[in-house]
Amino acid sequence: MIVVMKPGATQEQITRVSDRIEDLGFKVHLSAGEEHTILGVIGNGRPVERDQIELMEGVDRTVSIQRPFKLAGRDFHPQDTVFPIDGVTIGGQQLLVMAGPCAVETHDQLLAAAAAVKGAGGHVLRGGAFKPRTSPYSFQGLGEEGLRLLALAREKTGLPIVTEVVSPDLVPLVSAYADILQIGARNMQNFALLHAVGESKRPVLLKRGMMSTIEELLMSAEYILSHGNERVILCERGIRTFEKYTRNTLDISAVPLLKQLSHLPVIVDPSHATGKWELVGPVARAAIAAGADGLIIEVHPQPEEALSDGIQSLKPERFAALMDELRPIASAVGRTL
Amino acid sequence: MIVVMKPGATQEQITRVSDRIEDLGFKVHLSAGEEHTILGVIGNGRPVERDQIELMEGVDRTVSIQRPFKLAGRDFHPQDTVFPIDGVTIGGQQLLVMAGPCAVETHDQLLAAAAAVKGAGGHVLRGGAFKPRTSPYSFQGLGEEGLRLLALAREKTGLPIVTEVVSPDLVPLVSAYADILQIGARNMQNFALLHAVGESKRPVLLKRGMMSTIEELLMSAEYILSHGNERVILCERGIRTFEKYTRNTLDISAVPLLKQLSHLPVIVDPSHATGKWELVGPVARAAIAAGADGLIIEVHPQPEEALSDGIQSLKPERFAALMDELRPIASAVGRTL
Amino acid sequence: MIVVMKPGATQEQITRVSDRIEDLGFKVHLSAGEEHTILGVIGNGRPVERDQIELMEGVDRTVSIQRPFKLAGRDFHPQDTVFPIDGVTIGGQQLLVMAGPCAVETHDQLLAAAAAVKGAGGHVLRGGAFKPRTSPYSFQGLGEEGLRLLALAREKTGLPIVTEVVSPDLVPLVSAYADILQIGARNMQNFALLHAVGESKRPVLLKRGMMSTIEELLMSAEYILSHGNERVILCERGIRTFEKYTRNTLDISAVPLLKQLSHLPVIVDPSHATGKWELVGPVARAAIAAGADGLIIEVHPQPEEALSDGIQSLKPERFAALMDELRPIASAVGRTL
Amino acid sequence: MIVVMKPGATQEQITRVSDRIEDLGFKVHLSAGEEHTILGVIGNGRPVERDQIELMEGVDRTVSIQRPFKLAGRDFHPQDTVFPIDGVTIGGQQLLVMAGPCAVETHDQLLAAAAAVKGAGGHVLRGGAFKPRTSPYSFQGLGEEGLRLLALAREKTGLPIVTEVVSPDLVPLVSAYADILQIGARNMQNFALLHAVGESKRPVLLKRGMMSTIEELLMSAEYILSHGNERVILCERGIRTFEKYTRNTLDISAVPLLKQLSHLPVIVDPSHATGKWELVGPVARAAIAAGADGLIIEVHPQPEEALSDGIQSLKPERFAALMDELRPIASAVGRTL
Repeated sequence: MIVVMKPGATQEQITRVSDRIEDLGFKVHLSAGEEHTILGVIGNGRPVERDQIELMEGVDRTVSIQRPFKLAGRDFHPQDTVFPIDGVTIGGQQLLVMAGPCAVETHDQLLAAAAAVKGAGGHVLRGGAFKPRTSPYSFQGLGEEGLRLLALAREKTGLPIVTEVVSPDLVPLVSAYADILQIGARNMQNFALLHAVGESKRPVLLKRGMMSTIEELLMSAEYILSHGNERVILCERGIRTFEKYTRNTLDISAVPLLKQLSHLPVIVDPSHATGKWELVGPVARAAIAAGADGLIIEVHPQPEEALSDGIQSLKPERFAALMDELRPIASAVGRTL
Repeated sequence: MIVVMKPGATQEQITRVSDRIEDLGFKVHLSAGEEHTILGVIGNGRPVERDQIELMEGVDRTVSIQRPFKLAGRDFHPQDTVFPIDGVTIGGQQLLVMAGPCAVETHDQLLAAAAAVKGAGGHVLRGGAFKPRTSPYSFQGLGEEGLRLLALAREKTGLPIVTEVVSPDLVPLVSAYADILQIGARNMQNFALLHAVGESKRPVLLKRGMMSTIEELLMSAEYILSHGNERVILCERGIRTFEKYTRNTLDISAVPLLKQLSHLPVIVDPSHATGKWELVGPVARAAIAAGADGLIIEVHPQPEEALSDGIQSLKPERFAALMDELRPIASAVGRTL
Repeated sequence: MIVVMKPGATQEQITRVSDRIEDLGFKVHLSAGEEHTILGVIGNGRPVERDQIELMEGVDRTVSIQRPFKLAGRDFHPQDTVFPIDGVTIGGQQLLVMAGPCAVETHDQLLAAAAAVKGAGGHVLRGGAFKPRTSPYSFQGLGEEGLRLLALAREKTGLPIVTEVVSPDLVPLVSAYADILQIGARNMQNFALLHAVGESKRPVLLKRGMMSTIEELLMSAEYILSHGNERVILCERGIRTFEKYTRNTLDISAVPLLKQLSHLPVIVDPSHATGKWELVGPVARAAIAAGADGLIIEVHPQPEEALSDGIQSLKPERFAALMDELRPIASAVGRTL
Repeated sequence: MIVVMKPGATQEQITRVSDRIEDLGFKVHLSAGEEHTILGVIGNGRPVERDQIELMEGVDRTVSIQRPFKLAGRDFHPQDTVFPIDGVTIGGQQLLVMAGPCAVETHDQLLAAAAAVKGAGGHVLRGGAFKPRTSPYSFQGLGEEGLRLLALAREKTGLPIVTEVVSPDLVPLVSAYADILQIGARNMQNFALLHAVGESKRPVLLKRGMMSTIEELLMSAEYILSHGNERVILCERGIRTFEKYTRNTLDISAVPLLKQLSHLPVIVDPSHATGKWELVGPVARAAIAAGADGLIIEVHPQPEEALSDGIQSLKPERFAALMDELRPIASAVGRTL
């Protein structure tokens, strides 16, 4: 941390700040500039509570120097994290495509979707059993019955399943069925939930909140990692901006940036990012070209009958066509699909 | 709902859409314009799943007509909601000021803050026992010990207490101590938590998410109301924008807008909105002038020792001075403080 | 400026950066931390081109220490700027209200508006003769004829006039009629235009761009000041956010923040900020309570006939009522209206 | 346009609105719903001033039905616009890469950059002679001398040149040298400038404002088209969001969306979008994969000496490597580079 003193700070104020920092167990390195005196705070491993220093007389502001994500960052973990999930692998040369309906609705709907995903070469089946919905009057998911249908679809197709968990007390139940636990965008900073999945044995798919910075996403990953779960997949799914023609604005730069800052695998959700099925294909291609390790895509056998997110869901034949479009892009960036 | 057909939609497409809507139990009113044919959907009380219609051939888009918040809105509840909380009243002519430290840290810190709040004329004591923090390495609150200290402070001062609940399973514990349950900004769309506080008997202070629209805030209030709890207080606490000189951007227009759209009381949190104690006073004055029913303000006996949010906390004497500044503003808008 | 080296930067890299900075004429102060070495750059009055340093091997990033707005900032100009404009004064104890129609439409419309503004106690008449409109098919203003009508209204009422100038070549023409030149939000970074008004003799009302930071607003003021024009009025008029119930989001904190950072007068435009006449009153009251030096408000004799911005314009009787509401607020913050 | 009446609007209010619309020369189609009565306004080719209707008693709001961009939109111009510029073609099967330094600095710098662009297979040389800079103290460009150097570089390499024009009065001068006139992001709604380039004979590269919606970008294109210039190239270059690790947030979905809404060619600027040279490559690949018709990239022979934007500029060898990476991506989406 650096402390920038105000122009005109007195020697006494500078001394008082310096003493305070030393009292907290840090060393101070003083540097007098033309207008501003600057104090470098040399760490003892613990973070400083910045506000305490900023409030002292004569202090203009403080500036953080170290990245706050020690476990999620590359500084102390330079090599990529690659891990297997039930026979498939994420983070390596092979790309991973997760696909399926927004919500599990019926036996037939889910099995048709699962067959379509499997048939087109998808690797993981997605489907929501517990659905966070903005309105209390919208379909909230089938609950445990949805989990049972997902397990059945896995049995029929061999595809591992990913599904969302929305509350800490549901982690054991969802873990009993799912291969990957999904933390939805609205829960990215539900720290009680992050704590709970951090203690589970399942890999976690962590979606970026729609108004969360990249640093906050990595801090939420840090919660999970620091509770002992090392298998975290980051997911860029669009952020909220002033633009309203799309549901969210996919932050495509986040893909190479996350790969640069962190060793964790990064996937993209083009369905929630755009909210329009016509845009899913181009954005999915862009994600792979930008270096994503995989995708999560909404596929529904009959989008015009879907109980949620129909407008952004691909029909089976369109999903199959997209998989065919993605293969040469994957190859162009040295990956396989 | 209105369905706008594409220019050039065929008669057959129009008929198919019209039939589908009637099959769903709605009446259709057709209106042929120069370029676009428009279908008015006349409701049967249930919402339409818009995506299902938008995906039909020939449809350009759909437009919602009704406001989705029936219980939180004024349409069917025109008069203001006013309710008592342990001897104080919110939503009426009298303004309500909640104040206290961000986090309960120690016995002495809390009691000093409580005495300061009481002495300056504040009405409710705030203090966090369970703290949602961006970093897993920051102080996470004292937990139940914090609740016990809050109860002690209430005993000493007579002030009712408001404190945050961060997980559904903590609702019974927090309700056993607190007079008002606070839902923090990061949990505004934690629907499992909204469900749980909706079933509690305590009034709920619902903070607007930093990423949430006014409509989403009212939909989250709708969750609580629809689970049977009618005592909801809305709180504007700043939204996230591109501006970085302040922690958030207080949406001052939200105050009169929420009062216009909803019958629920509306308060403002100038501390989190600005993140700078020097700005708390001007913004608090603005909130009262704009018609807020109250404020929630961070007060700490020694901000420079605070374990969180020191930079935005007022010292006791500054809080007392602010209360004095607020009285003539309250009077200028026909309220009392 | 501070240069933060990467963890693991070599001694050679540090020396090369240090040498480069000294070659550019600065002094270097080196400070070796646990993980990061930091170089303090001690200025010679000129700014450093940061990119040049950031691109050197081993550099993690650079951090600016000095505020870039020397003329607009308070550091070297601590006292408030107060100046007279044709018999009224801005920036002092007396608040200034500018009001009038969005666009000058007809002789009768403008004179009716001017009489209403004068009658209610307004101080300056606003009205657009050159209108920047998003669509090429919308009414673009009366041009010079509009300026002539404004001059006529000034003659009849004695009110000084403020009107927008949209192009450098129009500055002489508009200056020949107007008492204050307005730079609209869309032109806040039209640097050729800032240069031109900086060389004019007229005071300038500089509106914050809808996506501009407070620092950028002050840098645009710096353009005008650095070309010799010292009479700049800053105007907060709402920024663009994800919220869509209002036209823009008024950044109320910007008022005390601008007053703290800069010596220039600050006014607020509640009409463009909200885009809804019902919200203009509450937001105007908030602006005064927060410490603004004045307001600019749209008033139209018949908003339902207005050729632009009718929805956010006050009728004369509502404007008069608002002026009455504002007086006790002004008094509560020690100002007069 | 549709007019939605408030629940409880009286028959008299409905009749008054209906009469007003007919007086304005439109036909009305009335549709009475359960809660809301809706009036369809059947056009006469002219737009309605919506505010005038919204202000009438009993009206809840109005909803636009038609897209406002007639010339830029695909509705009346379904086929792609493809046009030649000095021997190269934009909008067709062949992708177009524009590259060069942010600013023209010296003869040697520009000619080295031009040779690098030519050598790597770039098609157009970019370089700024008039530079809009946030600070009045930053390098503002060489002016006409810069234009002369660009013309010299064209002579040496055969590459057409694109350069920014910042003021209407400079359009003739810049047109005398440049092959393509660039409108920068800060000037996207400088309507006087759009008018001026609309009357020029040069193709126009129109950059999306960092604060502008896709609809506003198309409306600005509409300004140019409606003044007679049909050769407009749209450019997505990132929008401003809350994320601060990148300079802007590239809206990758805008590429397929603009291609869907408009017939005009669309290119992407990965340099300004990201502000970091390490991210330029991945984002450039993503743009091509998403369907862009070309790119504009900053290339500088010595970024660490650049007078502006060094941090986001590619060195010649990195640009050449990127061109090689782009070719298989282009091929994967059926284009050539």
